[in-house]
Amino acid sequence: MKIDGTAFRSLWIDETDEWSLRIIDQTRLPWAVEMPRLTTLDEVAHAISAMLIRGAPLIGATAAYGVALAMRADPSDAALHHAIATLAATRPTAINLRWALARMQSVLRDHPKGERVEIAYAEAAAICDEDVATNRAIGRHGLELIRARAMAGRRVNILTHCNAGWIATVDWGTALAPIYLAHDEGIDVHVFVDETRPRNQGASLTAWELGKHGVNHTVIVDNAGGHFMQRGEIDMVIVGTDRVTRDGDVCNKIGTYLKALAARDNGIPFYVALPSSTIDWTIGAGLSDIPIEERAATEVTTMTGRALDGTIATIRIVPKDSAAANPAFDVTPARLVSGLITERGVCAADAASLAAMFPEYQAQDAA
Amino acid sequence: MKIDGTAFRSLWIDETDEWSLRIIDQTRLPWAVEMPRLTTLDEVAHAISAMLIRGAPLIGATAAYGVALAMRADPSDAALHHAIATLAATRPTAINLRWALARMQSVLRDHPKGERVEIAYAEAAAICDEDVATNRAIGRHGLELIRARAMAGRRVNILTHCNAGWIATVDWGTALAPIYLAHDEGIDVHVFVDETRPRNQGASLTAWELGKHGVNHTVIVDNAGGHFMQRGEIDMVIVGTDRVTRDGDVCNKIGTYLKALAARDNGIPFYVALPSSTIDWTIGAGLSDIPIEERAATEVTTMTGRALDGTIATIRIVPKDSAAANPAFDVTPARLVSGLITERGVCAADAASLAAMFPEYQAQDAA
Repeated sequence: MKIDGTAFRSLWIDETDEWSLRIIDQTRLPWAVEMPRLTTLDEVAHAISAMLIRGAPLIGATAAYGVALAMRADPSDAALHHAIATLAATRPTAINLRWALARMQSVLRDHPKGERVEIAYAEAAAICDEDVATNRAIGRHGLELIRARAMAGRRVNILTHCNAGWIATVDWGTALAPIYLAHDEGIDVHVFVDETRPRNQGASLTAWELGKHGVNHTVIVDNAGGHFMQRGEIDMVIVGTDRVTRDGDVCNKIGTYLKALAARDNGIPFYVALPSSTIDWTIGAGLSDIPIEERAATEVTTMTGRALDGTIATIRIVPKDSAAANPAFDVTPARLVSGLITERGVCAADAASLAAMFPEYQAQDAA
Repeated sequence: MKIDGTAFRSLWIDETDEWSLRIIDQTRLPWAVEMPRLTTLDEVAHAISAMLIRGAPLIGATAAYGVALAMRADPSDAALHHAIATLAATRPTAINLRWALARMQSVLRDHPKGERVEIAYAEAAAICDEDVATNRAIGRHGLELIRARAMAGRRVNILTHCNAGWIATVDWGTALAPIYLAHDEGIDVHVFVDETRPRNQGASLTAWELGKHGVNHTVIVDNAGGHFMQRGEIDMVIVGTDRVTRDGDVCNKIGTYLKALAARDNGIPFYVALPSSTIDWTIGAGLSDIPIEERAATEVTTMTGRALDGTIATIRIVPKDSAAANPAFDVTPARLVSGLITERGVCAADAASLAAMFPEYQAQDAA
């Protein structure tokens, strides 16, 4: 999508050297748009673990290029093994990370060392292009849901949580892809953006990218979504996800579950947009079987933003002697999900519907 | 309750001059404990509207002293009328404010000017003493609910939202009164403290006062409560309220409704602690009939805390071109409330139960 009129993806190969990886440092948004070069496996691993880039699809694509950079430095089996292990350890929850690494390992391991660099770059590029095509397809299917509510020029109000926009993917986004398509075809869409504490990806990333694209939006605190639903001011919820189980349980940014409960209580459809690579066919029950990443308490006890003098400042907002806990994700049970918006279409959140829409993944898993 | 070993109330008459009002400036907590003197009606009105003091019971008690200060400056009917009107306009939602002002007006209007100062101070002091006694009674009734869960030394985990502690009242608090009593009698209580965006009263006030009293607690973002309930780590929820309708609908800090939904979904009791002065007998349906205060967008777009250099700093956390909306309260329907903890006992959240527990208020309202 565009930043100040110029089209970007969220990661790309540097045009000058033609081998290093460029990303948008999302820890600097919305205050500065910086595009650092990553040249080593360790730099990529750090970019993922420190969340310079985040979002399940983008993590997978970036990790794929991390393998390519590692092969460029040393195409040995040991280096491949080390790269996969290093990248797999950067974030525990995202299924796409494991998916992308397994794919890279699968295409590389049976090729001689001399071919591995070229194959790795090509495979990483393919993962990126497939992500863009997948997200555009998700967008088209979600667009139908929005269009159905946009009768006679009526405004459609959509709530989203966290950031599942184009900068969480290679392009388009998942939850925001239908919104960008609706906006581009002239539907009057307005987005309620949950700020999404503790890391504020809604306020800092979703608001930024919607604003840059010209989409109407209003930032609200995470506490406010239920109130706006009660008042009839929200027509639908669309969120992304980090992992969906084969039974349709949805693991997403902490707080998603609360919005799903409020949507059900107010008869508002609650949709989850995802590429099928986000589905973990090995897991059925999300609540018991998905490990939830516990992140540093400092994300809760501090907040970073722009001070009045323009500098980026971090402030403490919790008394120094108080403990804090910081689970990064929660699980929304399938019973609360109105539909899963995938690249193949919208599907009910249950095992039979998912299996019917993706029969080959089932077969692959059973093999 | 205590601050560093010394017992305080949240407002008191200055010991030196014996007429000015002293408060704890809650906008400075937890970073500094400042106790400014208020000497005029306008200073009191500002202290309420700028939220130097907040919490429904404390707003009412402070407004009562605001009338006393106004009478000290000018005991005329015109000044009384002006004082009531000025104070009534400071905050739109809290029922206690209107209740306290009506009470002051009622005792003052039929007395000659020469007696009004003394009567006003006495009535304000009575309102304060009654608030302390009421909250202690709420605490005793709520303590029974906690004690019932504290079998064989088992820890009791309680989630609370916003601040309904002693600094939201004259002393003891409402939601926290049972917790202080449980802690003081040796029950192992642990409190999950919702940070409570946008003003962070949980992180800055509840965590502060629990810490000063030695109560175990953990600050979490507002998004996390549902997750901890799903994991079985929360035994009950206790919150305060700004207004309860005669049908038992509960208006409280924005986000309370989401926690009530999560509690119901996980079979966890959801209690609301309140003095009966918080009940608005004139209103039945909370969702349609309670006006919700919309506060400044800057509360959402900025955050204040302590910078690394120890100064208090305000940072911006939303892109400058993004709109923000800031409803301050939401309404939790009575059907989600397990019980109302009042000074007379625990009562179901419905019209018949409330009427049975407070028959004289009904009669008074009908008169």
